[in-house]
Amino acid sequence: MAERLIVVGGDAAGMAAASQARRRRDGSDLEIVAFDRGHFTSYSACGIPYWISGVVTDRDDLIARDPATFREKFDIDVRLRHEVTRIDLERRTVHARNLDTGAEVREPFDQLVYATGAVPIMPDWADTDAQGVFGVQTLDDGSALRDWLDREPRPCRAVVVGGGYIGVEMAEAMLRRGLSVTLVEQAQQPMSTVDPDMAALVADAMRNLGIDVRTGVAVTGLETGDGRIRGVLTTGGRVPADVVVLGLGVRPNTALATDAGLPLGPTGGIRVDLRMRVVDTPGVWAAGDCVETVHRVSGQPAHVPLGTHANKQGRVAGINLGGGYATFPGVVGTAVTKVCDLEVARTGLRERDASRAGFEFVSAVVESTNRAGYFPGAETMTVKLIAERPSGRLLGAQIVGRSEAAKRIDPLAVALWNNMTVDDMTALDLGYAPPYAPVWDPVLIAARKAADALRAQ
Amino acid sequence: MAERLIVVGGDAAGMAAASQARRRRDGSDLEIVAFDRGHFTSYSACGIPYWISGVVTDRDDLIARDPATFREKFDIDVRLRHEVTRIDLERRTVHARNLDTGAEVREPFDQLVYATGAVPIMPDWADTDAQGVFGVQTLDDGSALRDWLDREPRPCRAVVVGGGYIGVEMAEAMLRRGLSVTLVEQAQQPMSTVDPDMAALVADAMRNLGIDVRTGVAVTGLETGDGRIRGVLTTGGRVPADVVVLGLGVRPNTALATDAGLPLGPTGGIRVDLRMRVVDTPGVWAAGDCVETVHRVSGQPAHVPLGTHANKQGRVAGINLGGGYATFPGVVGTAVTKVCDLEVARTGLRERDASRAGFEFVSAVVESTNRAGYFPGAETMTVKLIAERPSGRLLGAQIVGRSEAAKRIDPLAVALWNNMTVDDMTALDLGYAPPYAPVWDPVLIAARKAADALRAQ
Repeated sequence: MAERLIVVGGDAAGMAAASQARRRRDGSDLEIVAFDRGHFTSYSACGIPYWISGVVTDRDDLIARDPATFREKFDIDVRLRHEVTRIDLERRTVHARNLDTGAEVREPFDQLVYATGAVPIMPDWADTDAQGVFGVQTLDDGSALRDWLDREPRPCRAVVVGGGYIGVEMAEAMLRRGLSVTLVEQAQQPMSTVDPDMAALVADAMRNLGIDVRTGVAVTGLETGDGRIRGVLTTGGRVPADVVVLGLGVRPNTALATDAGLPLGPTGGIRVDLRMRVVDTPGVWAAGDCVETVHRVSGQPAHVPLGTHANKQGRVAGINLGGGYATFPGVVGTAVTKVCDLEVARTGLRERDASRAGFEFVSAVVESTNRAGYFPGAETMTVKLIAERPSGRLLGAQIVGRSEAAKRIDPLAVALWNNMTVDDMTALDLGYAPPYAPVWDPVLIAARKAADALRAQ
Repeated sequence: MAERLIVVGGDAAGMAAASQARRRRDGSDLEIVAFDRGHFTSYSACGIPYWISGVVTDRDDLIARDPATFREKFDIDVRLRHEVTRIDLERRTVHARNLDTGAEVREPFDQLVYATGAVPIMPDWADTDAQGVFGVQTLDDGSALRDWLDREPRPCRAVVVGGGYIGVEMAEAMLRRGLSVTLVEQAQQPMSTVDPDMAALVADAMRNLGIDVRTGVAVTGLETGDGRIRGVLTTGGRVPADVVVLGLGVRPNTALATDAGLPLGPTGGIRVDLRMRVVDTPGVWAAGDCVETVHRVSGQPAHVPLGTHANKQGRVAGINLGGGYATFPGVVGTAVTKVCDLEVARTGLRERDASRAGFEFVSAVVESTNRAGYFPGAETMTVKLIAERPSGRLLGAQIVGRSEAAKRIDPLAVALWNNMTVDDMTALDLGYAPPYAPVWDPVLIAARKAADALRAQ
């Protein structure tokens, strides 16, 4: 008789696991049922800001594979609008509710993949019945926001709360749609995913784009009227608003996991081993934004909710479920984003992370160009490296620039992955031609400066 | 008394060595004289095609530092239009001729940097008194070609001989200037710096641009008349031409070195150690396109004439000359170029190199996109990986694509530098956001396919 796999959560991680398992085990060997409470499977959550802005025109473009494809091509029984309400590990049963009909179902399992993703952090003040306050965690969230933006009277004034990735991307999206945009950030700067000196470049660029960036300001409440949002109350005064977008970050979605007794780590994510098995829980796997992984540079547990990790982790779980062998060896903290034409990238540890992890280090910041300085279209690129002292081992890197800056983080991410020293990095054989780099690539110039800084110590 | 350093060749390698030495030793400790037979110092030879095309408007933009800067800021006695005619190692003397006055000078040295670069390969048929045949090795060569293109009657028909980097870049340059362009290549394909399957993509793109690409055709002679070039005679017939550009590659410029008894390696380049000291020749250093280096993947000697290596090697020589410590640990064969908007990149070994070096290997080719497939501006990118069998160690990589493809070779070059296996590479934490990559970066997809190919063996 076939084993039975239940997948809780039908987005990137869950469906990657399901499809990989299916590639290795056919329906006679493994029956697969996947539940998701939303209307969609396997979509690009990272693409939502670009669909809201109108850069991506069709919502369906964000969907990598729809339920019909999973059913027909992968023989996976996808059940949308089904909210899993309980996982009973003892009886090996999942309880779910059909959100359209209210019907309750119970399904037995032999293997379970927990892939519920993350939930947005919602402060108390955001709990309102008034219309016009949105998260952008799911495609359902994004659809609700787009409906609101298209509805008469059309919102003109947007307030984005939180200046992380989602915050800056949504500020861009609102700007592109023609709204006036205020970004409210509690810290001294938005984009705290990079060090303050690099974040200052981002804040300047955002202000130059016409975004009203208010930092060091906390939201205290919402002003509503006639059932609609009217403004945001902050420690720096009232900001009028027709739409409020929440970008305060996310936390692992572990409500069901906690009830079922799955082990959580210090970051609040589910603890898994290298093969994405939930620790001490036979037959249960977890992947994606709900799990905790290891940061390869600090050696500490980390929760890094990103589609690229979710896909990799899901694939690893699925290969192992299918009888193969694969591991997810952790992350180095690479991330890229942009605000209009300003590109921002990071990998590894920021200065504050390096200190917290116990490293001594030096930092080096250089300004160079993406192309040969004399080549048309050459634009400034700022590269920051952080290196352990005295070993010279690279600990982190950050880049802020215009075109062709973001993906320059990749060679640095690979150098970090391989524990290279900045001294070794000065010799790296990177691609050179005038349309693509100065004869000394900005990455090499930064490595030289970091190596000099180490010697000067 | 101060030591005396003579630099033979005032371009990238020589002047990088001179300036680094100067940074560490002032004029009272080290006197520096640099000879160059041309009119320029420290210019970007790789930029010449873009100045000829008109993309770079001002020739002086290609010059990183002029002689006045070297004299005033670095206290380096630069003597242009001086051709060194002999290096006497026993008497520690350099003989040079002033090409403008004919005067002969002799200068003593304690230390010598040999940085004469490379000379273009000139077949017998190219030896002509007729006007209109050009190499593009030096800025003087490029200036002569530009003068010819601007002179009446304006040339309309260009023939580029040789389909390597210079050949394809010059074909683009001629096209941009409005000439009709024929590229003649003796091999079955242009761009043999990548494997034939990848080169075919380049040849197709060149033909679509309107370049008449003739392969498997050898040049047998030139047709001249009234002292001008009229056509190129080939094994495939006569090609009319008002201008002929030679792009047949270069070889190390070692005439003086041979006379002086400096040791050459199997590639014809000067043999140096890790610190850029000429082997068995105390007080003599060499750097740039005239030296032989080691290919870190094959372990074999290699001659890779590229401005980026010349700069690094010159810097290493200069640091060591100045009393510091630096090494040049070899190359992995990274190179990037473009033909109009088609970008081409490689690193490591091609299939034929891998075979010659004795490796068994598998290859994997994938087609993906530079951005998320749904993101506007997403364009096809083809990535090829070559991996040792059965170890899985990456041996080489090639990329052909449109925008933002070329520098994607950098993470692969760093992976190669660190002897990563394609299996390890599938887990790399590369930058992901929809404007910059699909959720599975093309590099990761290629690594997965190569890992699968290894398992299938």
